[in-house]
Amino acid sequence: MNFKGQHLLSVKDIPLDSIEYLFTISELMRPYATRKKMTRVLEGAVLGNMFFEASTRTRVSFGSAFNLLGGEVRETTGLSNSALAKGESLYDTAQVLSGYSDIIAMRHPSPHSVMEFAEGSRVPVINGGDGSNEHPTQALLDLFTIKNELARLNQNIQDLSLTLLGDLKHGRTVHSLCHLLSLYKNLKIQLVSPEALRLPDHYVDMLTNAGHQIEIGSDLEKGLSKANIIYQTRIQEERFSSEDQANRYKGYFRLNKNIYSQHCLPNAVIMHPLPRDSRNDANELDNDLNAEPGLAIFRQTDNGVLVRMALFACILGVEEQLKEYERGVIWQVGLIKPKY
Amino acid sequence: MNFKGQHLLSVKDIPLDSIEYLFTISELMRPYATRKKMTRVLEGAVLGNMFFEASTRTRVSFGSAFNLLGGEVRETTGLSNSALAKGESLYDTAQVLSGYSDIIAMRHPSPHSVMEFAEGSRVPVINGGDGSNEHPTQALLDLFTIKNELARLNQNIQDLSLTLLGDLKHGRTVHSLCHLLSLYKNLKIQLVSPEALRLPDHYVDMLTNAGHQIEIGSDLEKGLSKANIIYQTRIQEERFSSEDQANRYKGYFRLNKNIYSQHCLPNAVIMHPLPRDSRNDANELDNDLNAEPGLAIFRQTDNGVLVRMALFACILGVEEQLKEYERGVIWQVGLIKPKY
Amino acid sequence: MNFKGQHLLSVKDIPLDSIEYLFTISELMRPYATRKKMTRVLEGAVLGNMFFEASTRTRVSFGSAFNLLGGEVRETTGLSNSALAKGESLYDTAQVLSGYSDIIAMRHPSPHSVMEFAEGSRVPVINGGDGSNEHPTQALLDLFTIKNELARLNQNIQDLSLTLLGDLKHGRTVHSLCHLLSLYKNLKIQLVSPEALRLPDHYVDMLTNAGHQIEIGSDLEKGLSKANIIYQTRIQEERFSSEDQANRYKGYFRLNKNIYSQHCLPNAVIMHPLPRDSRNDANELDNDLNAEPGLAIFRQTDNGVLVRMALFACILGVEEQLKEYERGVIWQVGLIKPKY
Repeated sequence: MNFKGQHLLSVKDIPLDSIEYLFTISELMRPYATRKKMTRVLEGAVLGNMFFEASTRTRVSFGSAFNLLGGEVRETTGLSNSALAKGESLYDTAQVLSGYSDIIAMRHPSPHSVMEFAEGSRVPVINGGDGSNEHPTQALLDLFTIKNELARLNQNIQDLSLTLLGDLKHGRTVHSLCHLLSLYKNLKIQLVSPEALRLPDHYVDMLTNAGHQIEIGSDLEKGLSKANIIYQTRIQEERFSSEDQANRYKGYFRLNKNIYSQHCLPNAVIMHPLPRDSRNDANELDNDLNAEPGLAIFRQTDNGVLVRMALFACILGVEEQLKEYERGVIWQVGLIKPKY
Repeated sequence: MNFKGQHLLSVKDIPLDSIEYLFTISELMRPYATRKKMTRVLEGAVLGNMFFEASTRTRVSFGSAFNLLGGEVRETTGLSNSALAKGESLYDTAQVLSGYSDIIAMRHPSPHSVMEFAEGSRVPVINGGDGSNEHPTQALLDLFTIKNELARLNQNIQDLSLTLLGDLKHGRTVHSLCHLLSLYKNLKIQLVSPEALRLPDHYVDMLTNAGHQIEIGSDLEKGLSKANIIYQTRIQEERFSSEDQANRYKGYFRLNKNIYSQHCLPNAVIMHPLPRDSRNDANELDNDLNAEPGLAIFRQTDNGVLVRMALFACILGVEEQLKEYERGVIWQVGLIKPKY
Repeated sequence: MNFKGQHLLSVKDIPLDSIEYLFTISELMRPYATRKKMTRVLEGAVLGNMFFEASTRTRVSFGSAFNLLGGEVRETTGLSNSALAKGESLYDTAQVLSGYSDIIAMRHPSPHSVMEFAEGSRVPVINGGDGSNEHPTQALLDLFTIKNELARLNQNIQDLSLTLLGDLKHGRTVHSLCHLLSLYKNLKIQLVSPEALRLPDHYVDMLTNAGHQIEIGSDLEKGLSKANIIYQTRIQEERFSSEDQANRYKGYFRLNKNIYSQHCLPNAVIMHPLPRDSRNDANELDNDLNAEPGLAIFRQTDNGVLVRMALFACILGVEEQLKEYERGVIWQVGLIKPKY
């Protein structure tokens, strides 16, 4: 698969070599994202950042990634603001909006809506999340982070022992990640969840068929003991039929510094798709882990910018011209301590 | 009338030569909007895209048009976010916001609000729609589209036989278009609507006084039979006193492929101000027309970008410097088929 | 205090020489803000304009200021759109968002929230208002305006006779301004408010300790008579326990042309943090003053852009490179009268 001039709607059909190519380009983005230098390769291009469902972090991540390549961003947030509310079809919305931009990132609350939208679009569309269905850039940034964190530990993907932890039934990020993991074989994967929130059989079969070694259970301590990467998820309250249903599992698997030091391998990496619920009754990933070098959750969101930059560059076919449009960064980067 | 340094608040007082000048500049914008090349003529300029009423399509169209000229866009969406809600006058809002930008596009739910706003503004203001009153850029892009579609058929404005179809009583786009059509003479115009939703006498008189040949009726098939351009409108639900009132007319004049092939001239052009209501009970313009070359509704929204770019360029007086700031487009434009 | 690489969270700890340096840089911004020329010194930089509480004017002022330096702006408006609603801590939000931008301006309804956010941010944070607590850029632009208006009258800060008028109990702009005024000594300050809305003792003491001559009273005419600068404030309805409570004081101190000519010094300057409530029952600052040269309220908002540009430039350490990235402005600036 070549990304150039293509939609990115799903992780399902991306071959491994395309993913590896994307990750190579993602690494090229690091000096721009960390402000060692900048590139203006997409100066003059316009991203339509169409979020028909609110999502500050993902929306800003897409927008910043485009800005970091030199492009401009037009955007919308929320369904109510939209002609969709007047009975406009997604096909029409796409026809219209694709006349206003060079590429579109779209989020929408309805499953498969982004595919429907893409049918009407005259420019490439990136799925920024369509309800319970897919969120492909999250899955890609998760896999990119897994590979990067392993590299940080001088390991590679074949050394992976991954524990997926929490609500494995509803978490679309976990499901999408399973698709990507199926591109590899012979990995160790532990699935740890409450009985009622197990990973659907479909995905377990997919992982098994790929030749991975799967363990399924509900025992947190056992599940943590072998993992070099732990992927913790949030209870997806909005996917439950009632708040009561969701609250039964709130705080079911809490991970904190004490548990981490007692039960995890040294240097075990902790990932999470965020946001983590830091309220006392949930507190799925305790703030006392914040100083832990293994806590990779913010490296993970940082990686999201790299992967999205790479996607934009590859789809718009400018990934070989990054250097040509390079410049130095002249401003102060980051904080100078101590604060006044 | 010269556009330079002027507000654009109404279509009422624009002389024909100014409109023709604007359309000439609009055509110059086509290579930039279609990404054959780009221009950065407004690099450094700031548009205040002030939408105090939600309208994704119009807001993004203005914003993208400004980006396509190289400028930056600051914007707001919705009334509740605004100091207007704390009793601030439009005069004050305008004084403040005009200190933040080089030009302002403004939409507001109250008729004549944009004129009141313009009184306080220190920079040019473009009316992006003020309630039931005016939406001048829509009227301009409609006329521009009529002329372009006629040209596509190797005809010109004097060959126009236009059927205005639907809710002619409430549709502000139709009313504004009537103003512009009055600048010409001896055109053929058919007004087809339910009895209760006829074009107000005022506008009929205006068209008659301009020397046009007007036919008024409620018969869809008859109304379609002579038109080389059909302008279909949506039932303006939000302008009726109740939903019931509006629903009486929902789906009253439906246009679909069958009716089109049976009753319209070959190559007849179909326009619509959009959004079209594609729900089953409305379905004013059937999706089975989507592949019809005569369906001009998305060329119409594309033209909106050209006309808005031209307006920005003329008002800011840079229309002769487009080429000087021209560059090549280096990225992949549009989709490469087949999709993966 | 050096601004470079630092947060700006409060006016409390900024020494006078830092403020004077900031104001010197603010003056350098005037030709760019008034479009005599432009600078692209921050081209490629990204501002995260994170408004978790709606505020059109302040948000657009920050955004435009950044655009006027050549930078890009990503933004959010309103709390509901945010992961904060899913229980995410401000620390996490800051960690994530600071990976997407070079500097952040943040507003939030909860007092001290911006400080908490800054703890998690990896880039400098400017407090854009945190509930009833602080709004430091407003205080800075107010002081900058006071100095500029005095200069316009060929006076300087030691000639100041300032009347603070209105709700002095709740107005956070007044409180922050008191902090800045405490950096000077021997100024004349009149505090005029309804008995129940007096300036809290804490601030009166602060001003007294700084060596200022303070008069406290409820008599509007007397309070106006000596002032060369009058700072009028809005009744902060949202800070009262009930609407009834707030309405008791609505329109308590009205200033209009008649009162101005009878009771104020010639050329007395009128300031107001805006928005002013122009509804009949409030009308704290009558529109009949709009043509008065002493009415400085829109020079005040214009100054906000200068001060925010200066802050961005100083924090990002580019204030000495403005000229290097300078260009001419090629478009029509402002309005050409008469309107068509």
